[in-house]
Amino acid sequence: MTELGQRAKAAAHLMATASTAVKNEALRLGAEALEAKADAILAANACDVDAARGQGISETLIDRLSLDEKRLVAMATGLRTVAALPDPVGEVVAGDVRPNGLRVQQVRAPIGVVAIIYESRPNVTSDAAGLCVKSGNVAFLRGSSMALESNMAIAAALREAFAKAGLPEDALVLVEDISHEAAAEFMQLEGYIDCLIPRGGKGLIQSVLEHATVPYIIDGDGNCHIYVDSTADLEMAEAIVVNAKTQRPSVCNAAESLVVHADIADEFLPRVVAALDGVELVGDRASQEIAPSIGAATPEDFSKEFLDLKMSVCVPDCLSDAIAHINKHGTGHSEAIITSDYAAAERFTQEVDAAVVFVNASTRFSDGEELGYGAEIGISTQKLHARGPMGLSHLTCIRTIVRGDGQVRG
Amino acid sequence: MTELGQRAKAAAHLMATASTAVKNEALRLGAEALEAKADAILAANACDVDAARGQGISETLIDRLSLDEKRLVAMATGLRTVAALPDPVGEVVAGDVRPNGLRVQQVRAPIGVVAIIYESRPNVTSDAAGLCVKSGNVAFLRGSSMALESNMAIAAALREAFAKAGLPEDALVLVEDISHEAAAEFMQLEGYIDCLIPRGGKGLIQSVLEHATVPYIIDGDGNCHIYVDSTADLEMAEAIVVNAKTQRPSVCNAAESLVVHADIADEFLPRVVAALDGVELVGDRASQEIAPSIGAATPEDFSKEFLDLKMSVCVPDCLSDAIAHINKHGTGHSEAIITSDYAAAERFTQEVDAAVVFVNASTRFSDGEELGYGAEIGISTQKLHARGPMGLSHLTCIRTIVRGDGQVRG
Repeated sequence: MTELGQRAKAAAHLMATASTAVKNEALRLGAEALEAKADAILAANACDVDAARGQGISETLIDRLSLDEKRLVAMATGLRTVAALPDPVGEVVAGDVRPNGLRVQQVRAPIGVVAIIYESRPNVTSDAAGLCVKSGNVAFLRGSSMALESNMAIAAALREAFAKAGLPEDALVLVEDISHEAAAEFMQLEGYIDCLIPRGGKGLIQSVLEHATVPYIIDGDGNCHIYVDSTADLEMAEAIVVNAKTQRPSVCNAAESLVVHADIADEFLPRVVAALDGVELVGDRASQEIAPSIGAATPEDFSKEFLDLKMSVCVPDCLSDAIAHINKHGTGHSEAIITSDYAAAERFTQEVDAAVVFVNASTRFSDGEELGYGAEIGISTQKLHARGPMGLSHLTCIRTIVRGDGQVRG
Repeated sequence: MTELGQRAKAAAHLMATASTAVKNEALRLGAEALEAKADAILAANACDVDAARGQGISETLIDRLSLDEKRLVAMATGLRTVAALPDPVGEVVAGDVRPNGLRVQQVRAPIGVVAIIYESRPNVTSDAAGLCVKSGNVAFLRGSSMALESNMAIAAALREAFAKAGLPEDALVLVEDISHEAAAEFMQLEGYIDCLIPRGGKGLIQSVLEHATVPYIIDGDGNCHIYVDSTADLEMAEAIVVNAKTQRPSVCNAAESLVVHADIADEFLPRVVAALDGVELVGDRASQEIAPSIGAATPEDFSKEFLDLKMSVCVPDCLSDAIAHINKHGTGHSEAIITSDYAAAERFTQEVDAAVVFVNASTRFSDGEELGYGAEIGISTQKLHARGPMGLSHLTCIRTIVRGDGQVRG
């Protein structure tokens, strides 16, 4: 593992000064390679899928693991899209001249070696490599054991393409040792990994929190709330709740909890319960009294990320109680208020402690592409370095360059 | 400890929405309180100093621990200076309107509860509290056992002043349990501490790396190099080397290593050796051959932060070797090139992987105040969140506020 780390680190020095033109060419050649080597990649993927089926893996996971022509084209298109995005490296984010004449500039630079641990989907191999390469970083990847053949085939195609463009082929280093011991070693490669981003479920996140000694960014749970204020446009509120809960319930920016101001609960709850047909609702006593089809919520239900057609409901008496409820049970991911009251909107956006706060819009927009970043490497639920959806600029750090003409400190 | 964490967390919600005017008033009243309660604070400090003397503590540490009228006035002035700085909270750092009409803004917000573990100097209690309060954070402080009486007296004065201004008095929470167990518990207060900044020596940093489970920012070693290029103005180079090494050798931005291009070593080395009279020099063979007063360096010497009147010396054959040497042995803190060659300056600033890179200036300017941040909470030697000197803005995170009129995702 250390040898892989050394290779990644050595490549990082070259990547940091690679020109935008070369990096873009590498991504375009990478896209071509995925298409040209489709047969080999799909054959490797078929091996992974067969082996997984043999182990009795669930069909949901098999679907995540499976590649076909269409998914491969989507991966190639992803690389071309990233090639077309602006390069964050070198951006001067601030600067001035000090009284002693020193010219100070804060400049974006790559982080270095970005490590990503991820679960079954093999497309992450190509997506993550694309974002890392574009931002001048080395992608040091450790996928799941289940997808090893697929990941090796994708990595081989991309490494060859990167080298052809003039980048080090170690711009992408794939860990092929898929043992548990190797995963632990990977998280502890101090001095070789500059940033670790785990992409996966609770088990993986917990393992990183416990074992990682390298710096990491946590992409954690989203227990997202929709708060329907007393002044909400109820038609808008209904559409947003239905969208946030049901459009794609398995993702982290889907809503998990509905919070309805008591003043409009009598009118809104029966209506939204009908609109949420097929969604299991569990709520507090106040919500159950108004809409008897709502089941009784356990205290834990309010803190749960269901990732399913299930939603908790509560009926606070005022905006303050709603905000307190959200700050208590939320995971700091994405929260929304539906209101027509200016002061309520302002209070909610200022007092709710979350990465992304929405007024009159669905939490489903908490996504790098939807927010205009062009692509997304994950959604941070921590506060340091990056908060919320992370695009290319979040894969950089800020260095300071100081130019003088002989200044010494007095 | 958990109870202290709960108090800090509760106060953080109030701090996040405190107005700039109230925070500034709190800092001004805090400054007045330090002056008004000088007698009590100095008496408490005298107890700490007596106890430390009784334990045979070194005079260097006693000096760091000791307060007098002048140091107390400096602490009060520090709070007034921070009050006069711009408030980073609420700054809109980016924003646009998406094609679907969503108005997206990235806005600076406080981090929440900022924990600081520090060693003997009691002035950190007031300096850290000032920076945290100004940036809307709670200062959750754990000083050294040696300074407990002083820290308690300072914290009591500041807490009373903060409350008088309308802030929660728990804007400053001081940990009074100074056992080792309490320190470990402190670093593991997940859910209560949003960011931990250790300020102290290697032992403290190592302890944080090993035990902390809360997010942290490492303020690590500075093995800073001055590279004198073949085209350097030698008079300028001499002045900068002397300043960077001797002006204050005990601090992290002092130079520890001198790297001289072989083409000018014959001329420059004897001259700089004379100018560094009183500094112990240890070097590679090439440097020793030119200047026999230079001792033989062990391999470890090149990676050492001496924090003393000692310096390592090496004589590379070219700029590439100099950059490789610095990237190998440096700690990513601050590095300088002295040159009159444009291309060398550009290569050095781009290829040297450090938080702050200087051209023709002393590394001693690697400091928040010198770089124009107005004040400094520490110097980060990590890449995530903040790199290099950290001012008020580094005590914030970026939240996203999205305003819509009913948008749902298709």
